[in-house]
Amino acid sequence: MLTVITYDVNTEDADGRRRLRKVAKHCVNYGQRVQNSVFECDADAATMARIRNDLIKLIDQDRDSLRFYYLGNSYRTKIEHIGAKPSYDPEGFLSL
Amino acid sequence: MLTVITYDVNTEDADGRRRLRKVAKHCVNYGQRVQNSVFECDADAATMARIRNDLIKLIDQDRDSLRFYYLGNSYRTKIEHIGAKPSYDPEGFLSL
Repeated sequence: MLTVITYDVNTEDADGRRRLRKVAKHCVNYGQRVQNSVFECDADAATMARIRNDLIKLIDQDRDSLRFYYLGNSYRTKIEHIGAKPSYDPEGFLSL
Repeated sequence: MLTVITYDVNTEDADGRRRLRKVAKHCVNYGQRVQNSVFECDADAATMARIRNDLIKLIDQDRDSLRFYYLGNSYRTKIEHIGAKPSYDPEGFLSL
């Protein structure tokens, strides 16, 4: 199951910059960065729920936001990349 | 039909910053900004194809990238927002 994770973290202060680093690092641990603040994660529902809850704990819900797009299993026809750094096939990556 | 548009534009020079403004402006004309570089666009396939081609002309494909996630019509259960500035229902917006 592929989930697209996008986030906006308020980096006006040092705490925000720290939150941003933690969110990005957590996403990199479980997914593939396809754009600056866009990650794709190929994981089963239970693992994805855990990743989601971890990320929610890392952000300040009053200042930051997370968006999850659940694309399911037949996602290849749903994604199109144009331009620099085309992504690879997530399943060439370690699936969880 | 809902399409998520995300983009990364290289803003190291003035030309890049101009491209970024144009891409964002074009997305705002047709969709709803839900995060800094994430837009959601509720449009039929023909209109979406036109928007896509317009955006491709605006970027430098060697330095920038666009990603399109085609979520189809039954998208509400596929999207989750956590935190600041929750998005509204795209169909509360002008559908094209």
